[in-house]
Amino acid sequence: MANEYFFGVDLGGTNVEMGLLDEEGTIVAYVAEPTKAQEGPQSLVERVAEACCGLAKQAQVPPDKIKALGIGSPGPMSMSQGKLINLGNLPEFKNFFLRAELSRRLELPALLENDANSACWGEFWLGAGRDVNDMVLFTLGTGIGGGIVIGGELIHGSDENAGELGHMIIQTDGRQCTCGQNGCVEAYASATATVARAMEALDEGCESELVDLRRKNGMLTCKDVFDCAGTGDSLANEIVDGTARALAQICVSMRHITEPEMVVLTGGMIKAGDILINRVRGFYEEMVWNLKPEPMDICFAELGGHAGFIGAAGLAVHAHKHHQQRLYPSGT
Amino acid sequence: MANEYFFGVDLGGTNVEMGLLDEEGTIVAYVAEPTKAQEGPQSLVERVAEACCGLAKQAQVPPDKIKALGIGSPGPMSMSQGKLINLGNLPEFKNFFLRAELSRRLELPALLENDANSACWGEFWLGAGRDVNDMVLFTLGTGIGGGIVIGGELIHGSDENAGELGHMIIQTDGRQCTCGQNGCVEAYASATATVARAMEALDEGCESELVDLRRKNGMLTCKDVFDCAGTGDSLANEIVDGTARALAQICVSMRHITEPEMVVLTGGMIKAGDILINRVRGFYEEMVWNLKPEPMDICFAELGGHAGFIGAAGLAVHAHKHHQQRLYPSGT
Repeated sequence: MANEYFFGVDLGGTNVEMGLLDEEGTIVAYVAEPTKAQEGPQSLVERVAEACCGLAKQAQVPPDKIKALGIGSPGPMSMSQGKLINLGNLPEFKNFFLRAELSRRLELPALLENDANSACWGEFWLGAGRDVNDMVLFTLGTGIGGGIVIGGELIHGSDENAGELGHMIIQTDGRQCTCGQNGCVEAYASATATVARAMEALDEGCESELVDLRRKNGMLTCKDVFDCAGTGDSLANEIVDGTARALAQICVSMRHITEPEMVVLTGGMIKAGDILINRVRGFYEEMVWNLKPEPMDICFAELGGHAGFIGAAGLAVHAHKHHQQRLYPSGT
Repeated sequence: MANEYFFGVDLGGTNVEMGLLDEEGTIVAYVAEPTKAQEGPQSLVERVAEACCGLAKQAQVPPDKIKALGIGSPGPMSMSQGKLINLGNLPEFKNFFLRAELSRRLELPALLENDANSACWGEFWLGAGRDVNDMVLFTLGTGIGGGIVIGGELIHGSDENAGELGHMIIQTDGRQCTCGQNGCVEAYASATATVARAMEALDEGCESELVDLRRKNGMLTCKDVFDCAGTGDSLANEIVDGTARALAQICVSMRHITEPEMVVLTGGMIKAGDILINRVRGFYEEMVWNLKPEPMDICFAELGGHAGFIGAAGLAVHAHKHHQQRLYPSGT
């Protein structure tokens, strides 16, 4: 039996995933349950704490071997204060000190990290990036999030919001983004934006298999667009190329900025598989300079939906070993 | 008298600037002399070494108080190997181990850094960025270079070429850059690109005071464009706005990527003064999202042409105190 164990909690709008891992990353127990955010933050704390205690019992890990707890949560949030700023627009969670509450309830040092950074650390620790030191992760879903590892450390920036990579501007005066900026990569290459670009083309009268799909289902999904591209539909291919080119462009820019060895793509969109990764790689090769070779792995995440709680636990391991001051209460 | 002193050498195509600084950054002696690259690398090593010895004598600093030497040089180069890869296209300098040669000749531990990073560190240590922990520097000249400080450390990336910020792509399928990419910020906002955009507009028949200036001088300079903008010329103002908007766009993107507290602009273009900085700041405020306030200082460098040797000396101080392994020969 390993000597030290760590809880990882990934708080999502729908489910909370919780795991107990040893310091090498072996998952010894795991459970997911509904978030039920509407029951309020104290109920959440109770249920998470009880579930964590249940994991320890189930795996027969004695409490004194469990050293710390990492929590991943959607933003906006304050990592340094361990505070949710908002969660699913539920007012009860506004400014809730989740880290302190769970730390007290479980009698463990704890840290809070945003969910994209947690997933990034999970992939860096045990997933696609386990053999590199410098990595960038993009989460491709409704929006686009990011995480940056430099020299083996996640970066947080001067105000804890580094890595908001969906809001890199890829086009001057470009498409409007929900964030208020114009030309963000999220406004082109998120799942939502991919569908929106397809719908706009259909509204302009473009011919495509997507016309029938939309009529039949009353809507379009990002999967529809990728599926039709896969069967040769010309408009769908144009839309997918637009998404892949936008992603390739930020891969080129990130290569010149923090120069990672690897870019890892994760989130719902990667279910599209080869059609996505091959095109992003192809456009990257086309677009990147020729002054010197810039080999960079662009690949899919390997931990799937588990990256969040694995990464949260991994951040607790890392803090416990190297940065005790990052754990609340400080000095424990 | 201070206890420890450090040499800083800034190798340029035209001049070499050399200074002797104490660990607080006080310059106790300084000299600049012609590079004379055509005389070859060994001659350069001799002349730099002699000039450095001269500085120590002039300031009456005994040799045992001088602890290390920092060298800044134009790229391409290898920092880890201390090797120039090329210098002003002079074949004699190809793959020259400048760090080892100067280290032996001066009997001092040494490091080699690229010139944009050296200038960045100079501004971070003693210039505009002296009160921040996270900073980005853009050098605005013939091209656009960059440097990134995160949490008090310069970042180098996985292949020693992080911070090539002139090659962030700001426009999909945009203007061709000399690097081979399309849409680089350098292709819009460098001094060269600013002039090129003005010339293209004139060639298209736009009216402007620049027409006469070009006729009179047989050419246009970036200063001409900024000067004419200052006196109200409409085309010149459009061109300057294009430059300022491109720079503001990368400021927005960098804010979301590494989230610096401050962006420092340096290089020949900053002689344009208020017209440049005010417009970059104005466009930044217009362009950045409104999800949360993103206050970020955008300001000019303060050390002028001295940032290079000051930064090189500062990197030697920093390595001597915190990262001995960065000094060659290692372990000294």
